[in-house]
Amino acid sequence: MSISISQVVPLKINYKTMEEFRKFREYGLEELAMLEDLEANLIEDDANSPFFGIYEGDKLVARMSLYSISKKYDQYFFPPQNHYELFKLEVLPDYRGKGYGTALVKYAMSLGYPIKTNARNASDQFWLKMGFKPARYDSQRDRGENPYLWHPEMEKE
Amino acid sequence: MSISISQVVPLKINYKTMEEFRKFREYGLEELAMLEDLEANLIEDDANSPFFGIYEGDKLVARMSLYSISKKYDQYFFPPQNHYELFKLEVLPDYRGKGYGTALVKYAMSLGYPIKTNARNASDQFWLKMGFKPARYDSQRDRGENPYLWHPEMEKE
Repeated sequence: MSISISQVVPLKINYKTMEEFRKFREYGLEELAMLEDLEANLIEDDANSPFFGIYEGDKLVARMSLYSISKKYDQYFFPPQNHYELFKLEVLPDYRGKGYGTALVKYAMSLGYPIKTNARNASDQFWLKMGFKPARYDSQRDRGENPYLWHPEMEKE
Repeated sequence: MSISISQVVPLKINYKTMEEFRKFREYGLEELAMLEDLEANLIEDDANSPFFGIYEGDKLVARMSLYSISKKYDQYFFPPQNHYELFKLEVLPDYRGKGYGTALVKYAMSLGYPIKTNARNASDQFWLKMGFKPARYDSQRDRGENPYLWHPEMEKE
């Protein structure tokens, strides 16, 4: 059985999603701020979040965050592009090795925009395999990050 | 035996340091760029790096990166401050639980400037214990990061 991008769904902000998020290692101020906004009725239940995920049954087993960045703020592509910044790609430990991470990244690629990510924890091989390329490291811009880039046009080269 | 900040040393860029860096999980484009610059004689052997570390004997067992950020680019403190951004705090697995991480952070604090870090992998409790406070999450600025802040004045409150 292979996981396809059709199993990737946008994640709505609601109490069930917020509870699922607590199982992920990269849980922090962003998730807490969403929960607080939900509790204070500052955002509607079932509002859109920047997260996308994959469920097995009713359990969220993988997720990523995608922020849309205007070309006005692009520091990575030349000429500057409207692109996505991909964060917090994570598969729960018991569900690794099944292609969930790959399906999430392919989903992001299917949106048709360039993507910038920060390859963490020695994940360089994964990003290279997905067709990303390391950015030319710039210490002022990158400050210890490990930026990898993908552009739809790169597939045609 | 407790580890003190006097054991923290600035790390010079040379082949020995570059070899030590390969043992750390957060090894990436920054370290590769330093190695390439060294090999191409673009930087001098034994030039200063933004890294600080602690040795046991001649083995580097813990490190962090500190970037000095001008108040002109400060997005975290009000009023804007010259401050340090602390990255890549990491202790090798066999050397954890001995206070190396604490000594590195205390060394950074001893420099007398505010500090911004990104609390990763559920390290929130560590940063709180060190006296850092979570920033108010701003999705445009923080984009999935988990920013924690420390200011020398906070100690006096």
